[in-house]
Amino acid sequence: MSGIFITFEGGEGSGKTTIAAMIKEHLTREGYQVTLTREPGGVEIAEKIRDIIHNVDYTNMDCKTEALLYAASRRQHLVEKVIPALESGHIVICDRYLDSSMVYQGIARGIGVDEVYQMNLFATENILPKRTIFFDILPEDGLKRVYANKDREVNRLDLENIDFHRKVYNGYLSLCDKFPDRIVKIDASLTIDQVFSQVLSKIKEIL
Amino acid sequence: MSGIFITFEGGEGSGKTTIAAMIKEHLTREGYQVTLTREPGGVEIAEKIRDIIHNVDYTNMDCKTEALLYAASRRQHLVEKVIPALESGHIVICDRYLDSSMVYQGIARGIGVDEVYQMNLFATENILPKRTIFFDILPEDGLKRVYANKDREVNRLDLENIDFHRKVYNGYLSLCDKFPDRIVKIDASLTIDQVFSQVLSKIKEIL
Repeated sequence: MSGIFITFEGGEGSGKTTIAAMIKEHLTREGYQVTLTREPGGVEIAEKIRDIIHNVDYTNMDCKTEALLYAASRRQHLVEKVIPALESGHIVICDRYLDSSMVYQGIARGIGVDEVYQMNLFATENILPKRTIFFDILPEDGLKRVYANKDREVNRLDLENIDFHRKVYNGYLSLCDKFPDRIVKIDASLTIDQVFSQVLSKIKEIL
Repeated sequence: MSGIFITFEGGEGSGKTTIAAMIKEHLTREGYQVTLTREPGGVEIAEKIRDIIHNVDYTNMDCKTEALLYAASRRQHLVEKVIPALESGHIVICDRYLDSSMVYQGIARGIGVDEVYQMNLFATENILPKRTIFFDILPEDGLKRVYANKDREVNRLDLENIDFHRKVYNGYLSLCDKFPDRIVKIDASLTIDQVFSQVLSKIKEIL
């Protein structure tokens, strides 16, 4: 596959989505072919799976059910969208991927990072991003942004308490230590322009 | 867990569902507490997952997506229904379980039995049936029964061609060889009463 696979990771309200759109616009203007996506990415089967995961009524969903559904959605999105884009030479920027499962289900829900990773190998066949950018912001500050944005739909994960989001944050920090060659950290507490510059420079290093 | 976990396996039209209802009635009359179920088993989250799997429009569903969705549905059904029933001492008869995934996705779809088994360990935490009854009938004969029954809803798997169903059948035979202590075979081509007697005697051996 001739393209370059890049993922953005971080807690709620870390600004990933906003910056991803800016990066896509910038790189496209420079002449790169860019596919910006996030699971489920408009892939119908993956969308239907995500509807189940995010349904606020399903408070009795087992954490392993949740992890398997994310992996199923990931698989379909990967096969239908990410792999074809990489094969046609695109830079693929994916808002969340495997690391989200390791952190949210593996660490914050307590299943275990290695168990979630092994199960996800079935889904991803070891297709890993060349670079992962972790948007580093304290969970309290990220959530403030979420609640300040009235247009953003609140989902089942937003409703978790602050302890959950702290576990997510610490989980990401531990993945940064575990995969120092793949995951780079940027300071996501700064202004949008400052965050954008940091992210762009991290991407430029591998283009 | 003080209950006994029993699963029924076989191709389409093998008569599992009919016999399962008769067995439940019989054992209940004898004073046993019996839970008869099948994935998704009325568990709402699992039902929603099954709706996606069985949607005839989703012809582009990747086989690993399908396997992960079955595992997710299995997990939720296991946690919400099977484990509680086993804990309260019931005989639990489940119409299809892990072996279906190994045969349908692992063998017939070609993912590999061991890969599907490993991934399902994440979902089942090695909760295996004490006895599995394989309803042995040639796929051609089973499908004749399916199409003769106008009340039965046709799903995405029924639409597969005969080669697929032959692979399923041969897959089950290979699992019988692989797990001779757990899986027993009965002749499902006989009359309902004859099939019922065989199944009952296989169950009585472990009560």
